[in-house]
Amino acid sequence: MTDTPLEPAKATATEDVPVAFQDPMYLAAVFDLLGAIAYGELSAFERLAEDAKMAPGIEDKTELASMASTEFGHFCGLRDRLKEFGAEPFAAMEPFRKPFDAFHARTAPRDWLEGLIKAYVGDGLAADFYREIAAFVDADTRALIIDSLSDAGQSAFVVDRVRKAIEADPRVGGRLALWGRRLMGEALSQAQRVAAERDALSALLAGGVDRPGMDLAAIGRMFTRLTENHAERMALLGLDS
Amino acid sequence: MTDTPLEPAKATATEDVPVAFQDPMYLAAVFDLLGAIAYGELSAFERLAEDAKMAPGIEDKTELASMASTEFGHFCGLRDRLKEFGAEPFAAMEPFRKPFDAFHARTAPRDWLEGLIKAYVGDGLAADFYREIAAFVDADTRALIIDSLSDAGQSAFVVDRVRKAIEADPRVGGRLALWGRRLMGEALSQAQRVAAERDALSALLAGGVDRPGMDLAAIGRMFTRLTENHAERMALLGLDS
Repeated sequence: MTDTPLEPAKATATEDVPVAFQDPMYLAAVFDLLGAIAYGELSAFERLAEDAKMAPGIEDKTELASMASTEFGHFCGLRDRLKEFGAEPFAAMEPFRKPFDAFHARTAPRDWLEGLIKAYVGDGLAADFYREIAAFVDADTRALIIDSLSDAGQSAFVVDRVRKAIEADPRVGGRLALWGRRLMGEALSQAQRVAAERDALSALLAGGVDRPGMDLAAIGRMFTRLTENHAERMALLGLDS
Repeated sequence: MTDTPLEPAKATATEDVPVAFQDPMYLAAVFDLLGAIAYGELSAFERLAEDAKMAPGIEDKTELASMASTEFGHFCGLRDRLKEFGAEPFAAMEPFRKPFDAFHARTAPRDWLEGLIKAYVGDGLAADFYREIAAFVDADTRALIIDSLSDAGQSAFVVDRVRKAIEADPRVGGRLALWGRRLMGEALSQAQRVAAERDALSALLAGGVDRPGMDLAAIGRMFTRLTENHAERMALLGLDS
């Protein structure tokens, strides 16, 4: 792999996407993908910092603030990568501002536990989804995406806190299970909106002459996998999905 | 200097505060000082992340998020240092939650520019104040404090944005100057509250048999220095103080 995939002569030397970087549609899709993940990380940072205010104590607040900082670190990596690609990073993120902001506005947690579940379930879902799409890009970009999606530490902490809360008062389980389903529904509806509006991203999924893609059946299987993973996360929290 | 200043035998080997760490009042003051700065950094993180929501665009939002992350990094250093000292770090921060939260509640910025000025002026003031107090602690603790107070990048960015806003509409200058004065007033009133409530901290300032301290005249001179530095920051922003 090369550090400057924008130069055609070098880009043809890449192994898995030989001519991809000469294809403006492919480049547009990669910009979209990195832009979407970057803005997603930035808005995750904002929401985690916001939700930290609901923490019952300073130690719990610190946990959420720490996750927020990790997300911001991921954001910086993606922004720098967009710059390396010659993209204007903030312009690349702009198309995804509305859908992410809409998702967060529609899923503002009403309390600390809802905030924790959103951090865990929302992040997990986003990570699964981007990981699926990352299968269709070059190895360097894929590595950066996978790295950006690493667990910001939420899993163990959130699972512990939520399970304890349900233990203390089993009735909260029902409410939180509903909350988890709502998060999934809102996320899918925003993802659909993005797919409908961003042709290059959709084309990336569909594949090209020299690149594998997904047919409708494969997309269906992907959604099955996403739903299964979501159900697993809910089960780990002790919640029905 | 030693890594475990809590052990008397080693603590006596420190150069500038020979027996300080054997003095429970001194230790209490250091815990208070680190706890106060740590909680201050955590709440600065929260407020910067909150104010980032008012940013006019993604790039400006990123600037504030980046400052917030830097503050959180400082927080982590102070928390770890409190642990090294054998303190329960969150308990050490707890007494400062109310005054900091009260300060932030009373000075919630109404717009992006007020948020920027608060980040710059509030942080500068806090840094000046802690640096003054740090003169009375041992060299290791002092170094950590000075490091925690390093500019999180706000200066150049904030000065640029505020000056441009005043250039575009000189009338905002008057409103923002009032805002700066209000920030200073609220900060001083909370600092006074802390000084009245935390005996160990006040005793640290007053000095001890083996440690230099401040008499009332020296405290007066310190406040003069704080006010002068504040006026300088306001002038740099293009604002009357």
